[in-house]
Amino acid sequence: MLPADEQLAELRRGAAEVLLEADLLKKLARGQPLRVKAGFDPTAPDLHLGHTVLINRMAMFQRLGHDVIFLIGDFTGLIGDPTGRNATRPPLTPDEIKANAETYQAQIFKILDPALTRVEFNSTWMNAIGSAGMIQLAAKHTVARMLERDDFSKRYKAGQAIAIHEFLYPLVQGYDSVALRADVELGGTDQKFNLLVGRQLQEAYGQEPQVVLTMPLLEGLDGINKMSKSLGNYIGIAEPADQMFGKLMSVSDDLMWRWFDLLSFRTNAEIGRLRQACADGANPRDAKFELGVEIIDRFHGSGAGNRARDEFIARFQQGALPEDLAEVTLQVGVEGMGLAHVLKGAQLVPSTSEATRQVKQGAVRVDGERVDDAARRFTAGNTHVFQVGKRRLARVTLAAATGS
Amino acid sequence: MLPADEQLAELRRGAAEVLLEADLLKKLARGQPLRVKAGFDPTAPDLHLGHTVLINRMAMFQRLGHDVIFLIGDFTGLIGDPTGRNATRPPLTPDEIKANAETYQAQIFKILDPALTRVEFNSTWMNAIGSAGMIQLAAKHTVARMLERDDFSKRYKAGQAIAIHEFLYPLVQGYDSVALRADVELGGTDQKFNLLVGRQLQEAYGQEPQVVLTMPLLEGLDGINKMSKSLGNYIGIAEPADQMFGKLMSVSDDLMWRWFDLLSFRTNAEIGRLRQACADGANPRDAKFELGVEIIDRFHGSGAGNRARDEFIARFQQGALPEDLAEVTLQVGVEGMGLAHVLKGAQLVPSTSEATRQVKQGAVRVDGERVDDAARRFTAGNTHVFQVGKRRLARVTLAAATGS
Repeated sequence: MLPADEQLAELRRGAAEVLLEADLLKKLARGQPLRVKAGFDPTAPDLHLGHTVLINRMAMFQRLGHDVIFLIGDFTGLIGDPTGRNATRPPLTPDEIKANAETYQAQIFKILDPALTRVEFNSTWMNAIGSAGMIQLAAKHTVARMLERDDFSKRYKAGQAIAIHEFLYPLVQGYDSVALRADVELGGTDQKFNLLVGRQLQEAYGQEPQVVLTMPLLEGLDGINKMSKSLGNYIGIAEPADQMFGKLMSVSDDLMWRWFDLLSFRTNAEIGRLRQACADGANPRDAKFELGVEIIDRFHGSGAGNRARDEFIARFQQGALPEDLAEVTLQVGVEGMGLAHVLKGAQLVPSTSEATRQVKQGAVRVDGERVDDAARRFTAGNTHVFQVGKRRLARVTLAAATGS
Repeated sequence: MLPADEQLAELRRGAAEVLLEADLLKKLARGQPLRVKAGFDPTAPDLHLGHTVLINRMAMFQRLGHDVIFLIGDFTGLIGDPTGRNATRPPLTPDEIKANAETYQAQIFKILDPALTRVEFNSTWMNAIGSAGMIQLAAKHTVARMLERDDFSKRYKAGQAIAIHEFLYPLVQGYDSVALRADVELGGTDQKFNLLVGRQLQEAYGQEPQVVLTMPLLEGLDGINKMSKSLGNYIGIAEPADQMFGKLMSVSDDLMWRWFDLLSFRTNAEIGRLRQACADGANPRDAKFELGVEIIDRFHGSGAGNRARDEFIARFQQGALPEDLAEVTLQVGVEGMGLAHVLKGAQLVPSTSEATRQVKQGAVRVDGERVDDAARRFTAGNTHVFQVGKRRLARVTLAAATGS
């Protein structure tokens, strides 16, 4: 195993918070594999790169020699929305949960080493503790501390109902850490409160408290909003290699370094060397190629990255993509914007009729792919490279229109 | 069955609240037996008359033809104090609960008809719902509504910890009503909030909400404080008949009528006739005799009441007193002597402060009548029997002081 301080330096890269760093250092210094837990909802997943940030950190723990537990929170999934108000959250059957878990594993095992990943279902111990165990668990935390959670606090002050079982869910999540004797729990920044409940509960149950490591939300292709399906600014891990590569190439240089921290498996030292090379005059596009190749290899198999890169280069005719691509932001309504209007808005054509003509001639590409539908719509939250002919290019970010 | 309005008139006698009276009337008007629930802790009971107020109302429902459920709240008893802070509330074993329940039944079946009483243990359904059921139950109520409960509200505002399981206990009690499909729940006034939770939960589970009938706390022998062991102003239901009768005779006339309402099985009409007789000049002591005989019969068997009354009369009205009564003469000035000094002078107490304490506890009698004024003065030329507790008696003659 690497020395504790070197492990710590890798583990906190890009992390939002490590609570407490001193505790993590102490645990690492023992030189024993740590039990590292991350919990996931048992809903059918369709992961994009934003979701992988957390899984990547789990993988980093694996590479450093630690035991990683992929915890499926099926206990609450089996319950669904007990208020019955949320029709989109029906109770799942055990078979549905099993199927979803398998879908999940098929995706995460592109990142995690299946042989080194322990998969657990929290219904195992949560059903076993029974109703009396639930009461005993609830006795370990107070109403006032629970009301300190940001969203509870806001809702309480605003007079919005908080159902009492909502106070039990953080306790369930915390008890998972007790049952697993977790050394570390990973989660998004929005999970911080719940992760700390785990820390408190472990102390209440006489265990050494877990270290809480929160990861930030990944910014999407636009570099501004968090990556999400509904904003459309995402790269799905099941997308075709060339599409994935094209999207990756569209991100800004700043965002690229952020993505290196959160998406690359390279060590700090390797990323440092790439940064230094760029600072010394290397083309950042080459670093971006490295990132793209690494990620395409991860999801499409070794060699797929190089092929995608080569195809991308061929498509843009060996460097036709100008280095100083014009950056344009267009505001679009909820219905999005048609291709012809995007081309006109980005001043790549003088009129929409000219745009339509160019499309018909096969001269228009989006992210390097030829587009033959002038009416194709683009929605807010996306960034694409639009190209008319060989020389007219712009990177266009479609932003949600504000105001009425 | 009696007409609904006549039943209602009996059932609300002396009650603190009926929520809602219209609902009770509607339920009664159906002419079917109602399911009437009252819950009890599974701690070893040693009942006094104050505890019987609730059980008496259960018995009234039985006499009116309804189904009475004596519910033993063993589910939480099996848990004990889950915070571990309360050493006096250890978890009970199933055997202990069974033994306590039998002790309880031996006492309550002096009041209730065993053949018509259904005994239930809420662990039956509370264990069955499991941890998932507990979550679903907790989803049926909100944090804000729970914080409206007086004691929670005060503690929350004062910054005193409320453990989250404390929010679950009212829900457990409420769910008992759901499981039993209760039509009516009886409880003390301090239980009002929890009983209303039952009403709300039944509605949430699609049932007609129960009627909540709260009974007041019984005033003790002093007529001021609630009857309690720690105040010493109580009559235990296992006390010997003569002691019980003597204590009953010591209550004020006002308190007697209150006790008629809450402790007598007589109908409103019968009590009304006794009141009228007293208003017309009958000695209230005769009404008190009636109450005493009824209550002694209840706990010591038919005939015991008359015997206790006769012995009481023989003891105090015909001058028959213990043979070894101490004879004391105390010299008093023209202003007489206060009760506390008389008791000390007769060596019935070691000090006047102890005398005052005994008076406050209702333990002091003069000529068989309880005295509650420690400053009451006795003047020269009189002889009285002074009594502290059961055994310390003296016949004291107050003589005029001679000399300067």
